[in-house]
Amino acid sequence: MQKILFSVSESEFRAFAGPIETACRAAGLDPTISKQPQDPTSIDYIVFSPDGPIADFSPFTGLKAALSLWAGVERIVGNETLKAPLARMVDPGLTEGMVEYVTGHVLRYHLGLDAILATQRGRWAPELAPPLARNRTVGILGLGALGAACGLALASLGFSVAGWSRRPKEIDGIECFSGDAGLNEILRRSDILVSLLPATPQTESILGAEEFALLPEGACLINPGRGTLIDDDALLAALDGGPLAHATLDVFRTEPLPADHPFWEHPKVTVTPHIAAATRPETAGEVIAENIRRSEAGLSLLHLVDRLAGY
Amino acid sequence: MQKILFSVSESEFRAFAGPIETACRAAGLDPTISKQPQDPTSIDYIVFSPDGPIADFSPFTGLKAALSLWAGVERIVGNETLKAPLARMVDPGLTEGMVEYVTGHVLRYHLGLDAILATQRGRWAPELAPPLARNRTVGILGLGALGAACGLALASLGFSVAGWSRRPKEIDGIECFSGDAGLNEILRRSDILVSLLPATPQTESILGAEEFALLPEGACLINPGRGTLIDDDALLAALDGGPLAHATLDVFRTEPLPADHPFWEHPKVTVTPHIAAATRPETAGEVIAENIRRSEAGLSLLHLVDRLAGY
Repeated sequence: MQKILFSVSESEFRAFAGPIETACRAAGLDPTISKQPQDPTSIDYIVFSPDGPIADFSPFTGLKAALSLWAGVERIVGNETLKAPLARMVDPGLTEGMVEYVTGHVLRYHLGLDAILATQRGRWAPELAPPLARNRTVGILGLGALGAACGLALASLGFSVAGWSRRPKEIDGIECFSGDAGLNEILRRSDILVSLLPATPQTESILGAEEFALLPEGACLINPGRGTLIDDDALLAALDGGPLAHATLDVFRTEPLPADHPFWEHPKVTVTPHIAAATRPETAGEVIAENIRRSEAGLSLLHLVDRLAGY
Repeated sequence: MQKILFSVSESEFRAFAGPIETACRAAGLDPTISKQPQDPTSIDYIVFSPDGPIADFSPFTGLKAALSLWAGVERIVGNETLKAPLARMVDPGLTEGMVEYVTGHVLRYHLGLDAILATQRGRWAPELAPPLARNRTVGILGLGALGAACGLALASLGFSVAGWSRRPKEIDGIECFSGDAGLNEILRRSDILVSLLPATPQTESILGAEEFALLPEGACLINPGRGTLIDDDALLAALDGGPLAHATLDVFRTEPLPADHPFWEHPKVTVTPHIAAATRPETAGEVIAENIRRSEAGLSLLHLVDRLAGY
């Protein structure tokens, strides 16, 4: 028997407890799921979200692993009371949703859909025909599971795809850059820039005034990664007087985005309400169950977080 | 030496003559290009568009082939004065442009982008999150070069893709239907329907009141194929009181679409000005040159039109 404690929000518990239990049983496990432990020392696994109650892991002396329900772990990774291994959620459904969001908004910019939708009422305007994708460069900041999947999907549609990660990587079909010089180079090339970096101290405001100034005239930005990647004031300045033509933002420093935030009213900003990649209960349940199965079998966890790197 | 006569519009001549000549020389040919022949009997090849002057091919007694600059050949295929083989344009640039247009508009419907773009002004609405592509079926009518390429691109993004052609086909990754019964079946399944059939007597108004009535409630239509595929009045009725939620139309029975046509003002219709797939001079030039090279070498033409089938 595996005693699994859920430290998540009420709505997350309702959505995920059933699918995770089902997936555990399908994996040959015998889970006991609870929201409030009688005896913290008896808990084997904690399914964690930042919206749950647990901030102090020290009572859980027998903990084998903490399993994050979220892809972003910035609100747990620095928690020094957590001694057990921590795994991120890398949900295939989440990756699929992200690829669909990013590809959709890249094609929206590429095809000029906003202008198409605004140009009706009898005006036949064949000059709206776009160039081919092969003549556009999409830059992807972050080449983890999500960034790589988005880059490959865009490359298969013909886009010229450049990717950037802090540590050097090689991915077939993506021209890979790394380090500070590589960041400058990819910014100079990106007609459409997608930011999918994790939130770490190193990526705080990684896109600021100097970086936006390097973009080609008319470039567009899509941020489905983390709100902290962007210096909001520098973004507004780059839209108003700099090279940026438009930004589509899904994540923000404060969510929900406050009603008086200038992003809402800005004519060159599209706000989406953190919907690019929702964790899906069925597919996420299988990921959690597989990690418990691996832990019980003495295998290393999938998507193990490097606590020093922060992701 | 190959004597090539261009029967195309002035703007087509300006755009295509240079790239075609360049591609012919690169293929080892020795072309002589003209707009007005001194001696029709000396002409080897005619590069043809419906916007050019030639309607009577009988003076061209030495003609080896007619090479259409357009993918659609409905305005030449029935011309009985043309005895030489006729090749359609299947331009890789045209296919790429079509895949980008179709994928972009399918993702626009899938992600609900029109609602996203309309829902601004401070309203945080996470209920706008879409399902996964794997939970949507896209139906593609027409599995020629364009339809197959669009279907495969959508399948690689995770969509469930069904395809229909008059003659049975098999394509990995696409569930293929054919014949009248198959048409009814694919219509019943298609959350998003894409029509890419050629214009033939058999496909005239192939989408009419009975066909629209079979679509699932809330289905969307994309027509980048031919205007004649659709019964315009039946489409308007299906949008106003039937299952159709929206239509994006790129081709029309009369182009430019007349300013007083109801499509322009209809809130559930997006009109695009025949831009889904423009023939690109550089890539199209290589296709024309390759066919002349093949003809000179005694090989069969690529993309040869079946004059009886009409495409």
